[in-house]
Amino acid sequence: MATRKRLLNLDTMNQAVLDVEDPLGSVIAREVEMQQEINQGIKKPFDKVACCHLGDLQLMGYPPCTFLRQVAALCTYPELLDSDRFPQDAKQRARDIIKQLANGSVGSYNMTHINYEVNQKVAKFIERRDGGIPSNPRDILVSDGATQAILAVLAMAVNNEGTLRTGIMVSVPYHPLYADTIRLNEAVKVEYLLDEEHGWAVNVDNIRESLYAARKHCDPRVLCVINPGNPTGHVLSRDSMEEIIRLAAQEKLLLFADEVYQDNVFAPGAIFHSFKKVLFEMGPEYSERVQLVSVNSISKGISGECGLRSGYVEFVNVDPEVFGYLYILKSYELPNGVGVVAMESLLEPLQPGDPSYETFQAERRTLLNNLAKNARLAEEILNRAPGIHCNPIQGAMYAYPRIHIPDTAITLAQDQGVAPDALFCHLLLEDTGIILLDGTSFGQAAGTYHVRLSLIHPPQELKSTLQKIVEFHARFVQEYS
Amino acid sequence: MATRKRLLNLDTMNQAVLDVEDPLGSVIAREVEMQQEINQGIKKPFDKVACCHLGDLQLMGYPPCTFLRQVAALCTYPELLDSDRFPQDAKQRARDIIKQLANGSVGSYNMTHINYEVNQKVAKFIERRDGGIPSNPRDILVSDGATQAILAVLAMAVNNEGTLRTGIMVSVPYHPLYADTIRLNEAVKVEYLLDEEHGWAVNVDNIRESLYAARKHCDPRVLCVINPGNPTGHVLSRDSMEEIIRLAAQEKLLLFADEVYQDNVFAPGAIFHSFKKVLFEMGPEYSERVQLVSVNSISKGISGECGLRSGYVEFVNVDPEVFGYLYILKSYELPNGVGVVAMESLLEPLQPGDPSYETFQAERRTLLNNLAKNARLAEEILNRAPGIHCNPIQGAMYAYPRIHIPDTAITLAQDQGVAPDALFCHLLLEDTGIILLDGTSFGQAAGTYHVRLSLIHPPQELKSTLQKIVEFHARFVQEYS
Repeated sequence: MATRKRLLNLDTMNQAVLDVEDPLGSVIAREVEMQQEINQGIKKPFDKVACCHLGDLQLMGYPPCTFLRQVAALCTYPELLDSDRFPQDAKQRARDIIKQLANGSVGSYNMTHINYEVNQKVAKFIERRDGGIPSNPRDILVSDGATQAILAVLAMAVNNEGTLRTGIMVSVPYHPLYADTIRLNEAVKVEYLLDEEHGWAVNVDNIRESLYAARKHCDPRVLCVINPGNPTGHVLSRDSMEEIIRLAAQEKLLLFADEVYQDNVFAPGAIFHSFKKVLFEMGPEYSERVQLVSVNSISKGISGECGLRSGYVEFVNVDPEVFGYLYILKSYELPNGVGVVAMESLLEPLQPGDPSYETFQAERRTLLNNLAKNARLAEEILNRAPGIHCNPIQGAMYAYPRIHIPDTAITLAQDQGVAPDALFCHLLLEDTGIILLDGTSFGQAAGTYHVRLSLIHPPQELKSTLQKIVEFHARFVQEYS
Repeated sequence: MATRKRLLNLDTMNQAVLDVEDPLGSVIAREVEMQQEINQGIKKPFDKVACCHLGDLQLMGYPPCTFLRQVAALCTYPELLDSDRFPQDAKQRARDIIKQLANGSVGSYNMTHINYEVNQKVAKFIERRDGGIPSNPRDILVSDGATQAILAVLAMAVNNEGTLRTGIMVSVPYHPLYADTIRLNEAVKVEYLLDEEHGWAVNVDNIRESLYAARKHCDPRVLCVINPGNPTGHVLSRDSMEEIIRLAAQEKLLLFADEVYQDNVFAPGAIFHSFKKVLFEMGPEYSERVQLVSVNSISKGISGECGLRSGYVEFVNVDPEVFGYLYILKSYELPNGVGVVAMESLLEPLQPGDPSYETFQAERRTLLNNLAKNARLAEEILNRAPGIHCNPIQGAMYAYPRIHIPDTAITLAQDQGVAPDALFCHLLLEDTGIILLDGTSFGQAAGTYHVRLSLIHPPQELKSTLQKIVEFHARFVQEYS
């Protein structure tokens, strides 16, 4: 069987797919395997695998947002609407949502892209967030999370029919999804370095330099910015955002703003500004000219509903015809009903006095306080260690420290055909059970090495994890020096 | 603003997208518009729009499967597990599912493609369906409904790097999604005619003829078969399936079986056989050679959960490496948690004596009896009308009658730049409020015209709809003769 040449095989399949890497997938597969080995009684130097590679709040034990889940359960099984197990505000919100579902069911095809009813709520949410700057429901697309939106919008923007391929600019570090989407669409990845010396800020000179160099071999048309930064934890200053917008205007780049961590800002003084708001406050010269796409998701923020798959994308100054085609595409990939309902449940804020208000605020505070505590812990413990440097973390859910890797380890990694930081992560996992992601998967300046560590464990647990990482790194440096 | 050339516009965007048609989308948009006109008090010759264009059971008033929704609500809000509002079997099934969710939450990233736990249940479901023929959990991919699986698998199979483009064979009529997927991937649509004279059976001579002709200009590698047929309602005989499998083996075609209506078979004597079962019963000569992909979905069947978006795809004889890439891709597009839970709830059958058994069976019977009644009504009423012919309907949820369109109407349609059957559907809608889909969107033999009509209204309502269609058609023929 194995020798018989199949019809659909690696040679005959879509070759663009062969370039997809999905570094998270292979790490998670190793995690599952390792957990199985532990369950089978295979001896390890640790008791359990510590998952520091994902931004999955609920996996890490954060309870889901009670109000959201109540509304989702009520919409899924409306027979519960008369149950006294639910507070009045959850029942009222569920009733409002059910009224607007096709024939009252999350199980009908709910054509959010045609009837715009959910879009209206998203638009109001955005207007509230942005201090009243108008948002048009027809410029919004509800999607199964940010990932689906990123895949669809970037695919839409790629046109390789001319002499030059489409270039898509991504920060370094970026999220691996961007690199894979670019590969899948056979576009060109144009990297610009974030400024590690200045807390991972965006340096527009770096963008401009990369852009001009790239124009010799491709046609860069999209500038992707992740704010708050993943994996960096940097939150862009308003000045920096204005600079980016001016550059997008001058260079005619579509600005693709990945703003999924907009509610995860916790450092004193750090404030999230949406690109939409800054754009409009810069006046019509920019707000009528710059094409902006912004994505948001319920996977992050304060709900952390990674598994429910819901989010939205807002378009500014994108031709309705172009957008219309995205709608057509999405009419085949309708967003899932319960995910949409879950997102809707939080689009209008609970008010003081509402039965669910205090619980909601307490859940929110716990998460943001823990993130803030964990960020400080990571900075303190990592920066005390020789050979590790961690920038201040202002938002999102990760630390992205730089780690020293000795030359002997670099040579060993090269011999094994793996990246030096991937080797470090591999050895760390086998020795301590701690899973980090290597900087090579996110991108980094040549000759530097990083790891991404998620900050969503309970602070006490994170402290011990950080200490183990630091101790392992010291042993690692010693062993390979 | 309108005159300013945008960065991302119709000329610069992905040109493959421009070819996507989505005929359902435009009809649904017109439906929404029309309903709004009625709400605004604009006078119409009818009171309400009759949606006969969708296979959306819940939109048409079928209640969702109680057991499924109970399990889904319990998994979404597990605080309800101690509530006496739920039968014991629903609570037990929810507990079993929750135990296996990552940290017990539908809101975690549940990596069905890595841990295979849902896949194991799907595999057991398939084995039970196919009388024990083994199903490997590692050959299964859980997806957000069949649509997502069709899009992903066909994209995977397209490789236009050689001198000939990949050809994908589709029956005529087909589902529009196939045509659009082929366009999006810049593959070649190779049509083979179903045999309308013989109840829309598959005629392998037609396939072979199309295949040989197509090989002159493309490389046909995938043969798509929809069974039970959408829009035809034909259920393939076992003999016919064997012929198709032999042809796939001889001609080295990957057999792509769209089996989403496998539980919607209602005509006396009609039996659904899965392609997998027939393939394996034909012996190793075929079962070890033919590459088969089969999709299934909870949108149809007896649950009709279109909005929850869940389904699966099973691969037979597809290289694990190829399949591995699909897994990588899908690790970015994880199936939504509640959809998966909903699917899981029905993978193991309820047993007589279980508290939910009777309700479940009653819900199932109501649906299948109504479909059977409606199919007979459609055959009787349509076949009595001059100029309309409807084949026997054995399964799925639609009638696809052939309608006579007089020459004058054909000329008028040509003048208006629309297809003659699309003109008919348009006039019917404006006059009666009944929405049908035109045969042009599904494909039909040259010079023939059809409409697709869904059979999911309550029988009494469908009867009156059918009569209106027949009367309108008579007037239409008279007017244009």
